[in-house]
Amino acid sequence: MNIVEFFQQSSGKWFSQRTNHSLTTEPSESGKSTIAVESIDKTDPEVLKLCEYYKLNPSLALCAVRVSWEHTTEWKGGKPSGSTVLVAFADSDQPNQGKLLRMSHDLAQTTLAGRYIIGADAALTLITEAETMYSEERLWFASPNLRLRTSLVKEADGSGIASFFSEIRMGVTKPAG
Amino acid sequence: MNIVEFFQQSSGKWFSQRTNHSLTTEPSESGKSTIAVESIDKTDPEVLKLCEYYKLNPSLALCAVRVSWEHTTEWKGGKPSGSTVLVAFADSDQPNQGKLLRMSHDLAQTTLAGRYIIGADAALTLITEAETMYSEERLWFASPNLRLRTSLVKEADGSGIASFFSEIRMGVTKPAG
Repeated sequence: MNIVEFFQQSSGKWFSQRTNHSLTTEPSESGKSTIAVESIDKTDPEVLKLCEYYKLNPSLALCAVRVSWEHTTEWKGGKPSGSTVLVAFADSDQPNQGKLLRMSHDLAQTTLAGRYIIGADAALTLITEAETMYSEERLWFASPNLRLRTSLVKEADGSGIASFFSEIRMGVTKPAG
Repeated sequence: MNIVEFFQQSSGKWFSQRTNHSLTTEPSESGKSTIAVESIDKTDPEVLKLCEYYKLNPSLALCAVRVSWEHTTEWKGGKPSGSTVLVAFADSDQPNQGKLLRMSHDLAQTTLAGRYIIGADAALTLITEAETMYSEERLWFASPNLRLRTSLVKEADGSGIASFFSEIRMGVTKPAG
């Protein structure tokens, strides 16, 4: 599995169940969303904007995807829908690792550059570090129609949230495999 | 990281937050538990019983632990507390993989033999297959005091449950690292 294949396998519409566990004292919260993942061209205006911002040549990108979501249950402090564009650049010496650029449209537009690693177990790990936060996301396919995802976000003040997403391909009543 | 070190790092008392996502239509459910993990001797009566059942020589075991839990919130269909003994035997040709024997005392006593794999990313994967179910568990340390765990249980009828546990070492108010 490489990141191009991982995103190809992610393409389509997904029903996503989400739970957030606070790492301090707040109660956990859950919600449901629908997610659509689509491959986009390296000439997509948002891809070009992201690459320009990080001074990377878009023609060298491995792949790009747009993830759009719509929360079907209430989501504290967030918009009911949003989208993120992801663009991957492999390291020249390590084909299974590289840079992952990200532009999100949620409450505001945010751009982030992180790292991706595809493990020997075909799981995709995404790591993003900023001045005040550290985020580690892990995504893997339990079967072609069931994708699992964990996310850990730690803030500089020691607080954090561990989240779990189970995502079932829509149009399939039960996950195969 | 090997499985002996993984269990050593797991030793102690943990506050565990748990969420189950049904893979069909049932609503998700959450709960809290306290978990205690302790290394036990290969001469522990339960270790001997398990090894005898699976016809394995206990002196060849890598390590054994007892995990005891107490649900502090309601847990549908389960006892409020229980324990499991785990015994690991490495494959002779692959030190990072092997057999994992398990004896649980919950509603009933159950014994299972599965496989363990320690990945290059220091995560522990446990796979158990029985006639009517397939279970894949994944455990990893986000920091020494924060352990994350996912579990996927698929039944023969196509139903299943994906669970997520975030476990914070007790006596530590905020996870380090």
